[in-house]
This record gives sequence, structure tokens and C-alpha cells, in this order.
Amino acid sequence: MARYGGIDLGGTKIQAVVTDEDHEVLGSSRHPTPTSGGPPEVAAAMVAALQEAAEGAGVGTGGLTAVGVGSPGAVDDEAGTVTNAGNLPDWAGTFDLRAPLEAALDAPVGLSNDVNAATQAEFELGAAKPYRSLLGVFWGTGVGGGVVLDGKLWEGRGAAGEIGHMVVKRDGRKCPCGRIGCMEAYAGRGAMEIHARERADSGEKTVLFQLMKEKGKPRLASGIWAKALEHDDKLAHHLIDKAVEAIGVGVASALNLLDVEAVVIGGGLGLRLGEPYVERIREAMMPHLFADHHPPEVLLASLGDLGGAVGATLLAAERASLTAR
Amino acid sequence: MARYGGIDLGGTKIQAVVTDEDHEVLGSSRHPTPTSGGPPEVAAAMVAALQEAAEGAGVGTGGLTAVGVGSPGAVDDEAGTVTNAGNLPDWAGTFDLRAPLEAALDAPVGLSNDVNAATQAEFELGAAKPYRSLLGVFWGTGVGGGVVLDGKLWEGRGAAGEIGHMVVKRDGRKCPCGRIGCMEAYAGRGAMEIHARERADSGEKTVLFQLMKEKGKPRLASGIWAKALEHDDKLAHHLIDKAVEAIGVGVASALNLLDVEAVVIGGGLGLRLGEPYVERIREAMMPHLFADHHPPEVLLASLGDLGGAVGATLLAAERASLTAR
Repeated sequence: MARYGGIDLGGTKIQAVVTDEDHEVLGSSRHPTPTSGGPPEVAAAMVAALQEAAEGAGVGTGGLTAVGVGSPGAVDDEAGTVTNAGNLPDWAGTFDLRAPLEAALDAPVGLSNDVNAATQAEFELGAAKPYRSLLGVFWGTGVGGGVVLDGKLWEGRGAAGEIGHMVVKRDGRKCPCGRIGCMEAYAGRGAMEIHARERADSGEKTVLFQLMKEKGKPRLASGIWAKALEHDDKLAHHLIDKAVEAIGVGVASALNLLDVEAVVIGGGLGLRLGEPYVERIREAMMPHLFADHHPPEVLLASLGDLGGAVGATLLAAERASLTAR
Repeated sequence: MARYGGIDLGGTKIQAVVTDEDHEVLGSSRHPTPTSGGPPEVAAAMVAALQEAAEGAGVGTGGLTAVGVGSPGAVDDEAGTVTNAGNLPDWAGTFDLRAPLEAALDAPVGLSNDVNAATQAEFELGAAKPYRSLLGVFWGTGVGGGVVLDGKLWEGRGAAGEIGHMVVKRDGRKCPCGRIGCMEAYAGRGAMEIHARERADSGEKTVLFQLMKEKGKPRLASGIWAKALEHDDKLAHHLIDKAVEAIGVGVASALNLLDVEAVVIGGGLGLRLGEPYVERIREAMMPHLFADHHPPEVLLASLGDLGGAVGATLLAAERASLTAR
């Protein structure tokens, strides 16, 4: 009876799950990502979160068959390293993440890109289960993408899936990545916050930052955007409209190139705003879709915010079968 | 000793070749595409062109092992039909192209999309031979694209590769396809001609239409654009600059999604303008490329304007091996 551990390593939180062989969640735990201390501190927090999830699942220390990790940055599973994970503290350069995790958890550890793990989860276990090809769009602080073609994740030379940096407007807005006109410049929560701040500073009225203060948040989290929309905040509506348009345009461009069967919308903002906004993305996509007589399914991610961690358990299962050979 | 026939069916010309088993061209022939008479007339012209190429190759009637056809429109190889080939005369609706060709040529006939045939040719025999993944960009009247991933053509649900209709500018220029902001709206020779005509009509100076008249051409063919650039025609330079920028942006978007090893630039305009413009496309792509520390090769198509027809002989070889079973 295998027990898999899965960890989704994010810039603000570490989500851990323990599942059975069918990737059903038996226990889960969420810790904040350490804001200092660098990679060793982060690795320690990952171990703590997973041990907590294992306890919740009734699995003793050393009882995990294998563990998978979805991480931001450039992930090299062969070497066991993560390089330049920009959202994580002091993570410029290459850090061996596998060694400390394997030592502490006494189980083989596999590493993957976080967005690819989430895409694979939706493909194998979630909303895209009936399909053979998929575009995963994860709408959060940035906009990440994952591509599954003919049943297999397409990673290119290691950097495929950057749908957030497809250009939606030449000579458009500057993206946090430094380039011009990327989808993420309009749709990423990070970019939207910068833009909202500029407009608030120049006198535009909005409840966004007041809500942020009231909730004691350091950032305009997804819940704050949702709340501001409920308040009919004009600026929030305007920026979310622009984001939906940008996602629609970028998704249509991706579909014109790849013509996949399904698109799954996930990520913090995607999940928070839910089905009505998936419908709006679908509508924003249609005018730019070439094969518009035959649009793909556009679906809300069904694994919620556990998707990344559950996706990591798919990797754990792979790792287990590799080490068993 | 197999002998393959290949036909590239275009809106203005029918290019036929006959090759040996290694797809080396033994004979070729080019006929204008009939402008009336509909599919039967086009099929007859295809047969005539291929017979001429066969004679040139010293292959008698009935001496072809198999024949491949690259066609515009929606191609259904299983059914043997081509549907809605917009550039061909009276080709709305579905027409059985295989039956009349097989009857006249006494050889099995395989059908494929014209851009896919040209992409496959550059991949297997041309500039992209050393690579396993490829984006083919065919810059002509429109801008067609082909995608090869892990050694195999990716066709999606049949409509993949429409790189010309990836959006480069939301709220941008109207494309001949009716949509807004497509790459082709800036880079397609058809769209460029419409735009040049408008600006000439409103008084802007250009030698483009004078050159067209002198050459007795009904359209601004690729050679006319090249000539106008040599004349340092300001409007021609401006429109070609915009086209190069649009291709650079669209190619970068495609690469951010797919991260393939190589890009091949072909098509009438691409081949006519050649390597200096491939270099300019490379430069226009770089500012929008996410993995810019590791750009792919950007190469000029090496099979020239026989690429499509030679690609069709690859299909012929496939067809031959199928019918031999």
C-alpha cells in the first residue's frame, strides 16, 4: 500500500499532501513560506509541512513511499536542483533541494516545475481527465502555463509553457519580467497591483488598498480582488476586465498554434473568481480563435488549490517506480 | 526503384516534382493555377503538371510509385477530400481530389495540408534536419505555420499551426480573415497590399504599384516588394519593417509557449528577401523571448520554392508503404 507525499512550493505558502495510490488526499498541511534564511530554511519548512500532513494521514515518519515537489524556478530533476526561484527568499543560484529532503524524509524525492505539476494533476485527475491534449492556464501572481499534447507534458528544451509571456499587445504595457506587452503585464496579480497602486496614488478612487489594510494583508490577494468586485469598485472592475481580455487573447493565440481539446483555468485568481470568469475568458477568446466553428472546452480547474501538491504526488509515484527498478 | 510524385497546390501556381527514393528531384514543372472551372479544372491542371515533371524525370505514364499533394483548405486524407480552399477557384464545399488524381495517374495519392507538407520537408530534408522540434513560418500571401514536436508533426484537432492568426496587437489592424490584430494583418503580403493601396490612394508616394504595372503583374508579388526596397521606397520599407516586427513578436510568443529548437522561415516573401531578413526577424524576436539566454536557431528554409512539392513526396512515400501492406 503506497503512500505518496506531494509538496507545492510557492512564494507565499508551502502546501503539502499525503495521498494513497490513487492520489486521493489522506492528509494535508499548509505552512507559510519562510521569508528569510534562504534555501535551507525553506527545505526545513517543507519537511515540517509534509510531516504534519503525514501525521494527519496516519502515516508514521519514514512511512512515505516517495515524495514529489513542484517548485518555481528552473528545476533539474536529474541533478536534484532548483535554480533562480525568484519568488523564494535568497534563491538566486542553484540549490540542491533533493539531498536535504531525502535525508529528512527517508524517501526518494522527485522534482518538477510547479506549473507543470499542476497541469499534470488537472490532466490525469482533474477537469481535463477526458482529454488527450490540454492547455493549463494558472492565473495568480503571474500567469503560468502548461501544455499536454497527445497525453504527454510538452516541456520543450525546459522552458515551454510560458503563456504569461506571450505577447498580447505589441508596444503595450511593461511586464514585471521587463518585457513589453506580455499577457502577464495585464493579467498577473503582481502587475495588476503595481498598476492599481499607480492609479490610486494619482488620485483614482478604489477600495482595494483599504480592504487590504482591513484584512491585514501585505498584498492584494485574490480574495481582496473578489471583495472589491462585490463592492462594485470601478478600478477593480476595469483592471479585471483588462486581465480577462488579455487572457482571452493569449489563450486564443495559443489555441491557433496548438488546437488542443481543452483549456483549464486555475491559479489563485482563477479559482477565486471561478466559473463566471471562466465563461468571460471563453467569450474574450472567441473573437480571436481561428477554428471558431470548433472551439475547445474551457474549464475551471477541479482540484482547487491542492492541485499543485496532488500533481506532485504523480511525480512521487513515477519516482517510486524508478527507484523500485 | 521507387519514383515519387509531389504536387504543391497553390492559389497562383501548381508546382510538381518527381523524385527518387531519397527525395532528390529528378524532374519538375510549374503550371499556373486555373482561375475558373472549379475543382475539376484544377485537378486536370495538377495531372498535366505532374505528367510534365515525370517526362522530365524520364518516368513514363504509370511509372510513379505514389503521389503526394499539399493543398490549402481543410484536407481530409482519409476521405481523400479538400474543403473550402479559399484561394482556389470555386472551391467552397468539399471536393474529392483523390479519385480523379488516382484515376488519371494510376498511382495511390496521399493528401496533406500545404504548410504541413512544407514544414515536414524542411524538417526531414531541409534546414531543420539536425533538430527534433521545429516551428515553420511561411511568409507569403498569408503567414502559415507548421509545428514539429519530438520528431512528429503536431496537427492538434486538424487546425494547429495557424501562427499567422496569433494576435500580436490587441485592438490592432484588421486581418483579411476578419479578426483583429493577427500577425498576418501586418505581415501577410495580401494584407500589406491592401494597406499599401489605401496609403497610395490617399496620396502617399510609392513605386510599388508602378513596378507592378511595369512587370505586368496583377498583384504586389514578392519580387516587387524586393525591388521597391532596392529603390529605397519609403512606404515599402515601412510596411516591411512592420511585417518583420509582427513576425518577430508572433514567433517569440510561439517560442515562449513551445520552446522548440529551431525556427525555419520560408514562403514567397521569406525566400525572396532571404537571410538578411531572417536576421532581422531574429532581432525582432529577441526582446519578447522569455528564455533569451537560450534562443533557438532561426534559419532560412533551404529547399526554396520546391519545398512544398518535395514535402508532398514524403507523403507519397508514406502512402506507398501503406498501400504495400
